[in-house]
Amino acid sequence: MAEFKVTPWKVEGKIDYEVLEKQFGIKPLNQELQRRLEKHTGELHYLIRRNIVFAHRELPWLIDEYEKGNKFYLYTGLAPSGQMHLGHLLPFMFTQWLQEKFDCEVLIQIPDEEKFWARQNLGMSLDDYHKLAEDAALNIAAVGFNPKKTRIFMDTDYAKTLYKQAVKVAGHITFSTIKDAFGVGNETNIGWIFYTSMQAVPAFLKSVEEGKNVPCLIPLGVDQDVHFRVARDVIGKLGYYKPAILHNTFLPSLNGDVKMSASEKLGSIYLNDTPEAVTKKVNRALTGQQATAELQKKYGGDPERCMVCQYYRFLFEPDDKKLERIFDAERKGTILAGEHKADLAKRIIAFLAEHNRKKEELKGRIDSFMARD
Amino acid sequence: MAEFKVTPWKVEGKIDYEVLEKQFGIKPLNQELQRRLEKHTGELHYLIRRNIVFAHRELPWLIDEYEKGNKFYLYTGLAPSGQMHLGHLLPFMFTQWLQEKFDCEVLIQIPDEEKFWARQNLGMSLDDYHKLAEDAALNIAAVGFNPKKTRIFMDTDYAKTLYKQAVKVAGHITFSTIKDAFGVGNETNIGWIFYTSMQAVPAFLKSVEEGKNVPCLIPLGVDQDVHFRVARDVIGKLGYYKPAILHNTFLPSLNGDVKMSASEKLGSIYLNDTPEAVTKKVNRALTGQQATAELQKKYGGDPERCMVCQYYRFLFEPDDKKLERIFDAERKGTILAGEHKADLAKRIIAFLAEHNRKKEELKGRIDSFMARD
Repeated sequence: MAEFKVTPWKVEGKIDYEVLEKQFGIKPLNQELQRRLEKHTGELHYLIRRNIVFAHRELPWLIDEYEKGNKFYLYTGLAPSGQMHLGHLLPFMFTQWLQEKFDCEVLIQIPDEEKFWARQNLGMSLDDYHKLAEDAALNIAAVGFNPKKTRIFMDTDYAKTLYKQAVKVAGHITFSTIKDAFGVGNETNIGWIFYTSMQAVPAFLKSVEEGKNVPCLIPLGVDQDVHFRVARDVIGKLGYYKPAILHNTFLPSLNGDVKMSASEKLGSIYLNDTPEAVTKKVNRALTGQQATAELQKKYGGDPERCMVCQYYRFLFEPDDKKLERIFDAERKGTILAGEHKADLAKRIIAFLAEHNRKKEELKGRIDSFMARD
Repeated sequence: MAEFKVTPWKVEGKIDYEVLEKQFGIKPLNQELQRRLEKHTGELHYLIRRNIVFAHRELPWLIDEYEKGNKFYLYTGLAPSGQMHLGHLLPFMFTQWLQEKFDCEVLIQIPDEEKFWARQNLGMSLDDYHKLAEDAALNIAAVGFNPKKTRIFMDTDYAKTLYKQAVKVAGHITFSTIKDAFGVGNETNIGWIFYTSMQAVPAFLKSVEEGKNVPCLIPLGVDQDVHFRVARDVIGKLGYYKPAILHNTFLPSLNGDVKMSASEKLGSIYLNDTPEAVTKKVNRALTGQQATAELQKKYGGDPERCMVCQYYRFLFEPDDKKLERIFDAERKGTILAGEHKADLAKRIIAFLAEHNRKKEELKGRIDSFMARD
């Protein structure tokens, strides 16, 4: 069994998703559930079809409630630790799609204090994180959320709303629980020990606000599940519905690592990368191709090991048939690394140009998304 | 050496204040310092003259700053756990006097979450504590603070202001530190572990607000010192002045225990006690008198052991000469327990009537004291 460790602050090694399911108790998003979703959405997002959104907690319950007329809301978030990269967008793109299909409200938490506590070794100030959070809000809004149904908040700006509820959560969580779940120790700062209470709040905040239970669905990267393994029990004890969860896997870094980390500069495409930087990074990407053009033409490559193919799969080719053609060309050796990379770089550059155009447009009206106390 | 334990959540046994000084590193408020204070206040509060306000941290520095023209502000607070009793008023009466003499701003924190976390065994909800906090705000304002220079706040209502700063504090405190200082363990809830970060904030909040260092003086019951033993270092690391502190001892309960605890119903006079309840409780008070009236007349009693005398000393006879006459009558046996108690009960009843009249008057305008985000 491959060694792996999935915690909210670091992903190490290659992840064995089957073990993850067994260890964390999350269930696969199987065909039957996909069909149940499709009945309501009319189609399935490519991230579901491709098993990138691959697992869940209590999705059947959520759909049951929906079918009974109990609409749910969505909650997701991002803790900034540096510039945002492509991998950060995945859960937001998926959440935006869910918002559109189910016409529901979305709460988006940007905990500006989380990495301040969790990554003290970086030596960044809370103000530094707050600035990153402001930029993150723009990047997230640019994904296309409906401003009338989306509430983005930074923890330190929304603390009056959040803290009061976090107090109740914290009262139900012991240090032992945090120690086991997050691997913290005696030398961990008390902020990081407390933090998960803040992340739990948006999962039941609508129920508090409406004075009645409202189902909540949380799309998230699987590394964040640990927060809700702890919080779901507590939320139940507080008398609210436990949130349902949809888990996605991680966009690999261009050099083939499991999760594109904001600190791995060369393997990540940042949302503010220049076209030159994108081209340079894509040119260094790991591909599944043979050592020479001749061998590649003869034997073909492996799209599963080719990061160029994977970037199409995760982000840049939503059409399954077109993706299959790309994979096929890789397998058959009809496309060579140079051309393959140049095509992808072009797609990424166009995507970023469009993203940053939308982001720029939002600058004057980001407040229509933001919730502050 | 008498065994004792002073922590912010329970005071057990008889306190040896000398050991306290050695163990906690706080210094006696000696004659020289009393004279330095008196130079600015014109007179000394009876709580200082009687050694009830008995110790300090860095008072000489604070007076130095004051003499250089750097005015200080005051910070104190109260965590409600039940109805307020007479003992709770002491630090506020003293703080109000300081406000008047030094014409300075006062911040008063009412942490409605503290006992929710620290006393989970009581089974009270956060809403219960919030209601107690609202009542506490009235009791505190009724002590006579200047509404133009006093800011009272409950943590959950002022969390946007407090949490952002508490985040910075928490980043500098490890679980080990909390474990050593507060005696918490693995089964302690993460709220209580985090809490001291919130209590630290008002000690440097004015410096944050004014963008320059402002000295702070904290009058408090000595059991609260532990919070600032932890926080003072952190506040220094954040670049702010460490607060100076003035410590008071505890009003004994009527049955002679060291600290009047809100949970010891019979030994405590609550601010909302009826005259009948006051009379009944005072009649049960421990006195220093002999077993019979005859023996008392012959040998006299011990005012140090007489709670009636002590209540005059702590609260009901600010005039030293009159107090000495009361003590003397007790020593010489010229006053008997019945009369002695009846006199005190009358004083307490009159005090409470006046206090509650002021409290009632404040109900319509408490908002002029309150700070909320």
